[in-house]
This record gives sequence, C-alpha cells and structure tokens, in this order.
Amino acid sequence: MNTKYIIHSSNRAFSSLDKVLSGKAYNDARYFILCDENTYNHCLPILISHTSRLQESEFLEVPVGEEAKTIDVAMQLWKTLLDSNADRKSVIINLGGGCISDLGGFVASAYKRGIRYINIPTSLIGMVDASIGGKTAVNIDNIKNQIGYIHQPSAVVINPDFLNTLSEKDVVSGYFEIVKTLLLCDKSAFQSLLENSDVSDDIQAIKKMIPLCVDFKKSVVDVDPTELSIRRILNLGHTFGHAIESFFIDNGDAISHGLAVGYGLLCELYLSVKKLGLSDSILKEYCGLLRRFSAFPRLSLRDTEQILKFMRSDKKNADGNILCVLLQDIGEPVIDIALDELEVRDALLAVSKL
Amino acid sequence: MNTKYIIHSSNRAFSSLDKVLSGKAYNDARYFILCDENTYNHCLPILISHTSRLQESEFLEVPVGEEAKTIDVAMQLWKTLLDSNADRKSVIINLGGGCISDLGGFVASAYKRGIRYINIPTSLIGMVDASIGGKTAVNIDNIKNQIGYIHQPSAVVINPDFLNTLSEKDVVSGYFEIVKTLLLCDKSAFQSLLENSDVSDDIQAIKKMIPLCVDFKKSVVDVDPTELSIRRILNLGHTFGHAIESFFIDNGDAISHGLAVGYGLLCELYLSVKKLGLSDSILKEYCGLLRRFSAFPRLSLRDTEQILKFMRSDKKNADGNILCVLLQDIGEPVIDIALDELEVRDALLAVSKL
Repeated sequence: MNTKYIIHSSNRAFSSLDKVLSGKAYNDARYFILCDENTYNHCLPILISHTSRLQESEFLEVPVGEEAKTIDVAMQLWKTLLDSNADRKSVIINLGGGCISDLGGFVASAYKRGIRYINIPTSLIGMVDASIGGKTAVNIDNIKNQIGYIHQPSAVVINPDFLNTLSEKDVVSGYFEIVKTLLLCDKSAFQSLLENSDVSDDIQAIKKMIPLCVDFKKSVVDVDPTELSIRRILNLGHTFGHAIESFFIDNGDAISHGLAVGYGLLCELYLSVKKLGLSDSILKEYCGLLRRFSAFPRLSLRDTEQILKFMRSDKKNADGNILCVLLQDIGEPVIDIALDELEVRDALLAVSKL
Repeated sequence: MNTKYIIHSSNRAFSSLDKVLSGKAYNDARYFILCDENTYNHCLPILISHTSRLQESEFLEVPVGEEAKTIDVAMQLWKTLLDSNADRKSVIINLGGGCISDLGGFVASAYKRGIRYINIPTSLIGMVDASIGGKTAVNIDNIKNQIGYIHQPSAVVINPDFLNTLSEKDVVSGYFEIVKTLLLCDKSAFQSLLENSDVSDDIQAIKKMIPLCVDFKKSVVDVDPTELSIRRILNLGHTFGHAIESFFIDNGDAISHGLAVGYGLLCELYLSVKKLGLSDSILKEYCGLLRRFSAFPRLSLRDTEQILKFMRSDKKNADGNILCVLLQDIGEPVIDIALDELEVRDALLAVSKL
C-alpha cells in the first residue's frame, strides 16, 4: 500500500486530508480517533473543525505516554471496537505523539487481521520519525517495542503548527531524532546547528528541517519496509538509547524517548570513534550540542549492568551478539556492528564522564 | 516469502524438514516447539527422533484447544521468549492442530515485529486447512479470531500418519473442512463420498484427499494472500459456522470447529438453494452425510438471537451487512452475498428442522 503524505504548515493539512477521505476508498468508512488527554483537549477540536469527514467520528482515549503502550490497553481498545461493531472498513486516526501512533497502529494491524490507520502526529518526534514507516508496537515489562508488527499507515498528515501547543520540553524530545537524521544524511545541516547559540534557536532551526527528515525516512523505508538491510541505519542511537530508556522507566524515573536517543547517540558516536575511526571532532561537536540541555540524565557506574540486561533483549541482536549502527563519517553509517559486553561497559563508563 | 510444503505419509516428512533446517537460512536459528499436552506426549517424541536439527529445541506448552487462543496465553509466551533471549532468528515450530498453529503463528507474527514459524499439523483440520495460508489469530470474549495477522509460515510439514494417534472424534472434526473444499472444487470427489456407507469408510477415503485439499487451498492463497477477493471463497460454511461455534463456547458447551463448519455448510447450502438456485438434490445429499454423525449439535429457536449477535461481529461484514459465500453449483462459489437478518433467522429455523 502506498502511504499518502500531507505536510502543510497550517490547517490546510486537514482540508487536504478531508479531500482524501472524500475519495472512493473511504466510502462507508467509520473513523475512530485515538487521543490522550492532551491531544483530546488541544488538538482534537482543531482537527475536527477543519475536517468535515471526521465530524461523526468516535473517540478512543488512553493514558498519556508510554503507559498506554501495553497489551492491556490494546485489549481494551479491541473490545471497544468490537462492541461498536467496527468492521474492516473502519479507520483508526492516531492523533498524538509516537506513543499514540505506535499503539494505534498496533491495534489497527491486528484488529480483524488488519484495518487501516492514519497518523496525525502532534509532537516533533512523531512528525519526523514515529509516524513514518509503519512500525507499530507495545512494550512488555518496560522493555520497549517488543511486540508489534510492520503495517504501513494509509496516510500521514503533518501540521507543524501543532508544535505551538507543546512545551519546550516536548519539542526538545524530538530534537535528537532530527540530529540522528542529520548525522545519517546531511553534514552541512548538522554543522549549521552548531552555529545556534541556545536551545531556543535550535528549535526554530529544527522545525524547518521537518520536511528534510520526512523525505529521508520515507526514502529509506520505501526501499526496505521490513528492515532487512538499509532501514537498519535508522536505528543509529537506538541500541543504547532504547536500553537507557527502559532502564529509567524500570527505575520509576522515565525520561523522554528523545533524551534517551540523545544519550544513545553519545555512546554510539564514542564507539564510532573507537571502532570505525570517526573523527573525534564530530564527537566533541555533538557533546557541545548535548551540554545545552540541563535536563540530561546522568548514569552512574552501577547502572551499567541493568542497562546491559536490556541491551541483551534488543530486537536487532542475533547469535547472542549486541548489534549496533555506527558511523564512519556523517552520512556513512555501517549496520550490524557486533559489540561485546566489554565495549558496551566501556562506552557507558566513558560517556558518564564526558 | 515462499512457504515450503512437505507432504509424506511417513516420517520421511521429518527427514525432509531436517534437510530444510540444515540450509543457510536457518544458520544459528533457535527452535521453540509449541505443543499442547496431547502433542507433547504423542507427537513430540516422533518429531524429535526424526529431526536431528530439533534435538536442542526448547518447549512451550499451552492448554488443549481454543482455551489457548487468548491474548493472555500469547502474552505468557512472549514473556517466555523474552526471558530466553529469543532473537529474530528464532523459529517457532507449531506442533498441533489449528489452535496451536493459530496461536503460535500469532505469537511469531508480533514477537519483535515478526519471527519465522513452521507448522506441523497433527489434526486433519490442521493438515487440510488451518496450517496453510498464514492466517493467525486469537479470540476475544469467545468471539473467534478477532485479533490476528496474515503472516505466512516458512514451511508446512504434513505427515498424515499423525492421524493414527487421534480419536475418531478428532478426525471427524476435520471432515467438514474437506467436504467444504470438495464443494468448492470437485463434484466427482464429493459424489464419491456419498457412496461410503459409514463414517469409518469416509475417514479412510478422506485421508487420501489431503493432497488435493492442500493443493487447492495453496493455489487460492498464492493468488490472493490477503483475502481481497478470491480467497474469500474459503469462507464457505464459516459465516454461520463461526457464529455457531462462538455460541456453543459461550454457553459452556464447546463443539469442534469442524462440526460448527458442518452446521454452517448446512445453513449456507440451504440459502444457496433459496437465493442462487443451487440444486435441491445437493442439499439433500449433504443432509445425508450429516446424518452419519450422531454428535451433531441441535439448535433451538431461542438460540437464534444469540447466534445473530455473533454474526454481526463477523470480520467479513461491511456496511452493517452480514456477508456470506454461497454456491450456484459445486465448484461455482459466489462471494460477498449480503444476508439480511430475516434470511439468517429463516436458515437457522429451517435447518433446525431438517
């Protein structure tokens, strides 16, 4: 299926969606809009008032954040859909950040063996990453994204104006997915970030990079939707990042996915210097970017073993090896680099001192 | 992915499987064999002793029958796989009937966004139907197969000798899936069944029809894996059959899927005569076959509303209509026939008197 992408920096994004929903493919479709409390209050009224086809929708509300990404919540949603006699022509509209699109995509992918869904990301991380590519997921025992399916959305509708309703903290959490993308594809855009003087300048600059990030991810996913090869480059920062994120959730002190990826990128750039000869200056520049964030989590030496435990559950592992993406240079990622546990400990220890 | 089919009426089926597992695609694979108590005792020792590659396997045991097809059981299996550090190269081997392959296929489809699985059906219904075509599922609130994926098995290994370990009752339960297939594709094979004098003759005749049924289903599924059109013919007998099955489960008096399909075929042949001019003599011949089974369930008039409720949840429905496959003649199915509730009640009432 071809995903339709709509990006407009205004509510014109929703009038374009309205046109799509007026097409033959959506005859007799019923819509179920999945929200959390925040998007229900701040985004739903805007969406509904600009998309006449969604005015008869039903609403599904779930908790904010990763708490919603469980099998139990998915089960409740399936039961609600069944009780509403939702048939295979029904469409789930995921109105929210990455947690909403992961969960709603998962629910859609398995309901009656697969119904359609549309992502309307409201967070920066949703717009540049989570809403694109069809990865759906829930967590098990605080281990991220262990259960899921690759099921492409029918459409992704991005209105960067939605970011105006977000706190600076929420926007920052998408920052590192954008930095990851720039490290994968665009040296000059990465360098341009360094010229900003503070986080607030960064945010303005980075909002303009949304179309670049969407195009890059789309181009990778189109070639390799099921992550047999090149799509794996998108996991840069995530082998360490996911484990660090799970570690903080497990300790009752959750950090955002974006911050975890920020930390993960630090570990993986450190290992890229060590193992693939990445220039040390890039690692230093990246550290400079990181220091702009006071909320950055600190890890201590005794956290290492618990993080290692999570890394052993990483989906990308094979033959008992921890596999990771590293960089030879900006724009030159290498997939499937095997790490032994000494190297993992070394990276965690080294970056805790940087 | 191309599914590999292996059919041998002896343990040569397993030596062939052994060769497949020695291939490069299975380097470093770990195997998890999913069993219920019956197949653990009766089939696993045979499989293991003829398949050297499976001698280091780990075992997963679940309850017998539909009880295992729940999200809760799937969740336990996912946790066990995680605790065992099963990675994406792991393979689930479904050793059992349709419940085992539905459940194991579902667990494999969603574990770390999809690992491989191999079906080794041990029941007649598994051999001719459930193991082929990649439909995986669990039930919700006794409504069958509401949650699942279409995810093709890597291999299907059929050894009809396994049927020797089954009770007559279990074999009979696959009988009606075979009758369904013959109604869809082969008039002379259907007529030949009528010449048998009792169930035991039928069973011998029908075991020889396994390759015909596998080939027919395989040919349909290859053309339309995701059931956009022609694959729907395979639902003959199932619109009524699933609802009747759910009805009996809900009343604490479960009948086999096969018997439910037997009843469903009766309702749908009755409506085929009424709506599509199917010859009345085929309905009469089919009734003759049914009368050989003393265990056949009886429905009363007051059961109708509850069955209708289940039919309204059917995955095949669209626009609030109950959709059904009917026959113009043997070998001439018509998909997407809309039934109104009067017609459903009429069929249930009429066949309760036949």
